[in-house]
Amino acid sequence: MQKYFITKNDLKNHIISGDDCHHISNVMRFKVNDRILVSDGEKNYLVSLKTISSNEVSFEIIEEQIGNVELPVFVSIFQGYPKADKIEEIIKHGTELGASLFTPTLMKRSLFKLDPKKKEAKLTRFNKIAKEAAEQSNRNIVPLVDDILDLKKIDFSSYNHKILCYEENAKNNELTNFKRIISNLKINDRIAIVIGPEGGIDDSELNYLKSIGFTPASLGPRILRTETAVFYCLSAISYEMELKK
Amino acid sequence: MQKYFITKNDLKNHIISGDDCHHISNVMRFKVNDRILVSDGEKNYLVSLKTISSNEVSFEIIEEQIGNVELPVFVSIFQGYPKADKIEEIIKHGTELGASLFTPTLMKRSLFKLDPKKKEAKLTRFNKIAKEAAEQSNRNIVPLVDDILDLKKIDFSSYNHKILCYEENAKNNELTNFKRIISNLKINDRIAIVIGPEGGIDDSELNYLKSIGFTPASLGPRILRTETAVFYCLSAISYEMELKK
Repeated sequence: MQKYFITKNDLKNHIISGDDCHHISNVMRFKVNDRILVSDGEKNYLVSLKTISSNEVSFEIIEEQIGNVELPVFVSIFQGYPKADKIEEIIKHGTELGASLFTPTLMKRSLFKLDPKKKEAKLTRFNKIAKEAAEQSNRNIVPLVDDILDLKKIDFSSYNHKILCYEENAKNNELTNFKRIISNLKINDRIAIVIGPEGGIDDSELNYLKSIGFTPASLGPRILRTETAVFYCLSAISYEMELKK
Repeated sequence: MQKYFITKNDLKNHIISGDDCHHISNVMRFKVNDRILVSDGEKNYLVSLKTISSNEVSFEIIEEQIGNVELPVFVSIFQGYPKADKIEEIIKHGTELGASLFTPTLMKRSLFKLDPKKKEAKLTRFNKIAKEAAEQSNRNIVPLVDDILDLKKIDFSSYNHKILCYEENAKNNELTNFKRIISNLKINDRIAIVIGPEGGIDDSELNYLKSIGFTPASLGPRILRTETAVFYCLSAISYEMELKK
């Protein structure tokens, strides 16, 4: 069922405003009395549409939906800024897979050069992608795409597990670090995952991250592309913590 | 290190022929005495380049590389043919993640209409994507992209585990089927995974697959896009079987 995230104010007034109205009326072509889900980021409601225009949609609440579909841990992806539009693919699929926060991270081997004039527009677009992916995958919350930051300016102190995806470990047949951490996670743990850009992690970055408590870890014996590494980490965390035997 | 898959005949003659020569000389711009990996799909060799042109490259074998990076099970992805170029993304990342065989599968809700005149060109392109992804991820073998087949014409009799990724199970909070199968896999098991196209699996397809031994399984509580489901399955199998605590 289609889901839309709305503001607490719109929820109180039983309306949907902004771009979603266009989506409801012209893209999905919903009709009066059709049912959708709305969420204020805390609770989900099954609602019935009462009036529809491309500027405003009003609804009636049928019932609150019970059920949490969020990962039981807070996973924050610090993604070395990759080439082309890969960051969008990472935000889209990473949102479906349950990430809570994305930080596009400038690293030494990022080929991406940040144009300060375009930054705000980029962040707006990234957060829109996260919102749409959260709606499509029926998330309870919309993950935040944070500011584009230099690796060494990021404060990792709030995380109790810190993993650096490091392909040199794959070449050296290290296959224990990732699973040892993930299989010991507890509910509400906070995990920071750093993933290098296409060119990988620079030695000074590796040493810096180790010095602040990151564990370099391989994701199996094959060499994964940067975007594939994100999907691997989040899928493995879901498999470990959400699926049951 | 860059890797190229070559024919057994080229390996015997210590040459590389075809498109890879262009890649070696003009894309990677390797020089004489640079080292690369070559594989005949069975063994990997570290070689040193002796002569380089865009038509033919010759090399000297330095040593055989020991080490298997293949998943210990045979995973075959039967992918409901999706929209646009998603099938290429699935083959690319699925190869990195260790799949052995891909079968683009025509299902009732596939929006893709097969143009028989374009089929051969498509399969050639898909297999080229698999070869390049296998080289990039340092696989020992290149997975095959099989013919584009109708679901009901596929022979699944060689598989000892059969999983249907089924999002209705996610909605019904079924979270045990996938992990029960994956956590009990044995080395050399053969796993068939069927994933629907964007519109999902039709009821008659669901009933057919159940009748031939498929277990419908959710991949956690969120609704995944078709391509994300493939990445989830393969990542979870690697995490379960290749990583150690």
